[in-house]
Amino acid sequence: MARLISLVEDGHPALPEVMAALAPHGGHAHVVGLTGSPGVGKSTTTAALITALRARDQRVAVLAVDPSSPFSGGALLGDRIRMEQHATDPGVFLRSVASRGHLGGLSFATPQALRVLDAAGFDVVLLETVGVGQSEVEVAARADTTVVIVAPGMGDGIQAAKAGILEIGDVFVVNKADRDGADDTVRDLRHMIQLGNRERSVDWRTPVVRTVASRADGIPDLLEALDAHRSWLEESGALEARRSQRARSEIEAIALAELRRRLGGEGGLVSDELASAVASGRTDVYAAASRVVGAVTALPSSQ
Amino acid sequence: MARLISLVEDGHPALPEVMAALAPHGGHAHVVGLTGSPGVGKSTTTAALITALRARDQRVAVLAVDPSSPFSGGALLGDRIRMEQHATDPGVFLRSVASRGHLGGLSFATPQALRVLDAAGFDVVLLETVGVGQSEVEVAARADTTVVIVAPGMGDGIQAAKAGILEIGDVFVVNKADRDGADDTVRDLRHMIQLGNRERSVDWRTPVVRTVASRADGIPDLLEALDAHRSWLEESGALEARRSQRARSEIEAIALAELRRRLGGEGGLVSDELASAVASGRTDVYAAASRVVGAVTALPSSQ
Repeated sequence: MARLISLVEDGHPALPEVMAALAPHGGHAHVVGLTGSPGVGKSTTTAALITALRARDQRVAVLAVDPSSPFSGGALLGDRIRMEQHATDPGVFLRSVASRGHLGGLSFATPQALRVLDAAGFDVVLLETVGVGQSEVEVAARADTTVVIVAPGMGDGIQAAKAGILEIGDVFVVNKADRDGADDTVRDLRHMIQLGNRERSVDWRTPVVRTVASRADGIPDLLEALDAHRSWLEESGALEARRSQRARSEIEAIALAELRRRLGGEGGLVSDELASAVASGRTDVYAAASRVVGAVTALPSSQ
Repeated sequence: MARLISLVEDGHPALPEVMAALAPHGGHAHVVGLTGSPGVGKSTTTAALITALRARDQRVAVLAVDPSSPFSGGALLGDRIRMEQHATDPGVFLRSVASRGHLGGLSFATPQALRVLDAAGFDVVLLETVGVGQSEVEVAARADTTVVIVAPGMGDGIQAAKAGILEIGDVFVVNKADRDGADDTVRDLRHMIQLGNRERSVDWRTPVVRTVASRADGIPDLLEALDAHRSWLEESGALEARRSQRARSEIEAIALAELRRRLGGEGGLVSDELASAVASGRTDVYAAASRVVGAVTALPSSQ
């Protein structure tokens, strides 16, 4: 499995064959995204969740998305140490994937790595991201259930709303709930969620769970919330809709990469000359886009 | 100008004509992105920068990117009040653009709105984003110079590194520099920047400027840093490279929208049926992508 994920990371030529073989075996795993600002206790919560899922005899995979930044290596390594207790458990698979190419974003390979883990029969795949940035939104796009973790004193409800995390959370966790201000944070979150749901007419009642992950307090409540969300996803049809949406963006990304390859040149769909002509004002973006459309539709038909 | 930007926001059919007419008149404006976590004082810094730029008799436009989230309306409105002192100055143009369709992201219209403001002869365009999330990375992608604002006590250097903001900043501002911990924040930032630049071999010496924006302390230093970065961009060739890269993504986005339109259907490049077939395991992503490439290349050539 680790080798299959390496094939995915390397963009190996055998991938189409591998994915075709795996396709019929997917759909079982519950993909749970874990996100939140640095310092809220994401790794501790992940470790506590693994312990609880293993106690139910479920197989768990963790995909930790590491930004490729040279800055973050050390900090991440430190976090990983919390996972060491699970490293020798054959029912747990831990893997970091680098988020190459995009600052703070999930790698191109993440969706396919998720497909490998799903086909391998894991019951739960925890998709953990580092810090804030676009990776939060991307985790939400890749996960069946997105857990947003906050901590007391990390900013009030308004700040959370401004940071855009309220929209992406299916389940909220107030970790370090034994600290001062936890009640305020829970109340603010509930209030903001209520306001938001009224406008969006969502029929899922977004729970706010209190945890002290370092001593596993509240982790059973979190598991219950995850199970309830998975059931809701299945019953409401939302699971199918989310997975179709995910498949759509994967298919499009692969198709675009293929069109880029067939157009040739370093510039992909847009040549260096064309980009430079627009940058310098010699032509405009729409005229340039027309030329790209012309070039793509002039490719020999592959059907 | 306000009406031109509305045309852009509405995706008006006359846009190709408008952009063709504006193309030869661009390239003068210095596009400065302002980003940072909620609460660091972005709006206050923006207001202070406007005052300083106006004192040099430069024309300033502010494009504030508002997430379309129902949660954020109130908070943003509050921020905007700080701009009211500039609202009647004919040398200042203030505009919010909604970031529709993407959580926390810049709207599709932002690049073209920037082209309008540039062609209109503004000396500086301040592109301000709300909060964290992918909008930070997108601001950096749209701006000539990206200013990352932090405040003491908002997290140490390691946290900043984990949040991915170090990579995107051309200039750092430690605002509220009269508060406890400002020295530590400046020192941590400088240390992390030094580590990062060593690995990336960048020849721009990223400055860390201290400000107390609410009383305009340090704003002359910030202006000087912005001027220095603009000069460096021009001399090093980085300005041309950044602008070409920006043009490339704009051209591609418009070309893809056109291809989607010509393929017809609600699903764009990827039909609902195809997305659903992959989601349910009836086919795999690569086979589906091949069908998309086939459909695109089978379109009548428009050249």
